[in-house]
Amino acid sequence: MSLGEFDIIRRFFATRASRSDVQLGIGDDAAVLHPRAHRKLVLAMDTIVEGVHFLKNTRGFDVGYRAVAVNLSDLAAMGAEPSWMSLSLSLPDANAAWLEDFARGLFDLADRYDVQLIGGDTVRGPMVITVQVGGWIECDRWLTRSGAQPGDDVYVTGTLGDASAGLATLRDRINSTGASYLQQRFLRPEPRIAAGRALRTIANAAMDVSDGLLADAAKLAEASHCGMTIDIDALPLSKELRASFNEENRLTHALSGGDDYELLFTASAAHVQQLASGSIAAVPVTRIGVIESAPGIRCQRGGQLYSPRSTGYDHFAQD
Amino acid sequence: MSLGEFDIIRRFFATRASRSDVQLGIGDDAAVLHPRAHRKLVLAMDTIVEGVHFLKNTRGFDVGYRAVAVNLSDLAAMGAEPSWMSLSLSLPDANAAWLEDFARGLFDLADRYDVQLIGGDTVRGPMVITVQVGGWIECDRWLTRSGAQPGDDVYVTGTLGDASAGLATLRDRINSTGASYLQQRFLRPEPRIAAGRALRTIANAAMDVSDGLLADAAKLAEASHCGMTIDIDALPLSKELRASFNEENRLTHALSGGDDYELLFTASAAHVQQLASGSIAAVPVTRIGVIESAPGIRCQRGGQLYSPRSTGYDHFAQD
Repeated sequence: MSLGEFDIIRRFFATRASRSDVQLGIGDDAAVLHPRAHRKLVLAMDTIVEGVHFLKNTRGFDVGYRAVAVNLSDLAAMGAEPSWMSLSLSLPDANAAWLEDFARGLFDLADRYDVQLIGGDTVRGPMVITVQVGGWIECDRWLTRSGAQPGDDVYVTGTLGDASAGLATLRDRINSTGASYLQQRFLRPEPRIAAGRALRTIANAAMDVSDGLLADAAKLAEASHCGMTIDIDALPLSKELRASFNEENRLTHALSGGDDYELLFTASAAHVQQLASGSIAAVPVTRIGVIESAPGIRCQRGGQLYSPRSTGYDHFAQD
Repeated sequence: MSLGEFDIIRRFFATRASRSDVQLGIGDDAAVLHPRAHRKLVLAMDTIVEGVHFLKNTRGFDVGYRAVAVNLSDLAAMGAEPSWMSLSLSLPDANAAWLEDFARGLFDLADRYDVQLIGGDTVRGPMVITVQVGGWIECDRWLTRSGAQPGDDVYVTGTLGDASAGLATLRDRINSTGASYLQQRFLRPEPRIAAGRALRTIANAAMDVSDGLLADAAKLAEASHCGMTIDIDALPLSKELRASFNEENRLTHALSGGDDYELLFTASAAHVQQLASGSIAAVPVTRIGVIESAPGIRCQRGGQLYSPRSTGYDHFAQD
């Protein structure tokens, strides 16, 4: 098979519908976009590496889906509306069947959120995929990690630990009904775009949980110059996680496992009633803690202080 | 040594001055930019891979410089004014000395063009670096590959083949005055931003020469639905290239070697006199051919048709 760089772009990536804010898409030295009136531009970039962020021999669909999902999750955490993306694809070879599957996964999610692929780069190298996603947000209000206030309640969307548990079952080749659900949670994270949009007028601070709850909560607290107490008993855990892992292991997944791509956010007491309904934009929401002025992350369990086993994922921490 | 992901960002990448169009930079889930009035947004993304785009054991400075240069060159080809960039850094380990050198190279060029680093991702993996650069352009006119008209003259900035020849001397460990110049041309390409800005009102079509003149000329001609004849005798070659390589080899570098990062552009006869001065924005310019309606790239030498040995670089063409 002989697939050139331009064949790859033409065949798998170039035939997509056009958004009105994209004036020049794939095929030139750069793309040209028309800024939307009264909107700010929001930009995020995430990279996934074979053997680090996904297992070797993961099917193309799942890799393409993941590359978009992790980026859209960042826009969700800002409350932004996604609009376009650029793709950098470093691949050891040009396998047409894999590429077709990859493109299907990529566009499965991108098309759903009306995100247009506007350009990028295709090179030969190890399997490393970077997506930059861009979107727009109303000028008056976007979500950051730094707006939390002492007294805010802390919430999280969905359930925690499923993806990390799913990855563990993939690694250990465990097949069960519960494992299959958890694996889907790892392979097909749903970016919480609608929830993020709805939270713009509710949350004081928000971020997505990608490196594990404890690690990400620490980042939010630090950015906001405050601290947080997390109520371990309140953590939302799926019935599949409960069925598949013992208490110690499911807590480790929920607190320290990565790849949840749920939103962690804080809101003042004024929003307690609204959020007590248990959902926002049709996504479940659970109160899991409170913001305090004393720095650091504390965990409580049965009313007692609790020390978790590990704290989260850092790419270079093992050096 | 134990350098975490966040230490890396803080220590090497987070302490840079702020542009007024960047409202939220490094440190949150995404960056927020304020669009400039009466400007379109221009976006390019390029990836460089160790062992593919630069030699193994290249010093950090040169890798950082290159990651920015190849991207700014794309904006130059659009006539855009660069403004900000995102960086994806996949590295096998967190070597502080290498990272410091890398950051120095990155900011050497970025600071010169007032390009602010607004975010990105740092992951453990093979050495693969992706930069997305963004900038602004006046609404009325940007440069594309597709605007060439039959009868246009074809021009190129600077000299051709130096970088490819320089890479060859690096590979073969050749040390000479000429080789040192050529190596600098490979290691420190100067993005033709000012020339690109000046060409907005002169050129009908433009692109940067990164994959070799013949390959890139073919892309420009195809995008413009026309063809081109290149006058081999007119190709601008540096005295160092002439001194270091015989005629056959220097022509191969000039026609098929990559990494020139010069601008290839076309302009109507109305601009002949202006361009005959031999420079634009203080960058040398040479007329090397003509656009014709018949598709394809033809070369002429001494008034005769000439067939070059190879045609350029395609990452996946060897499959």
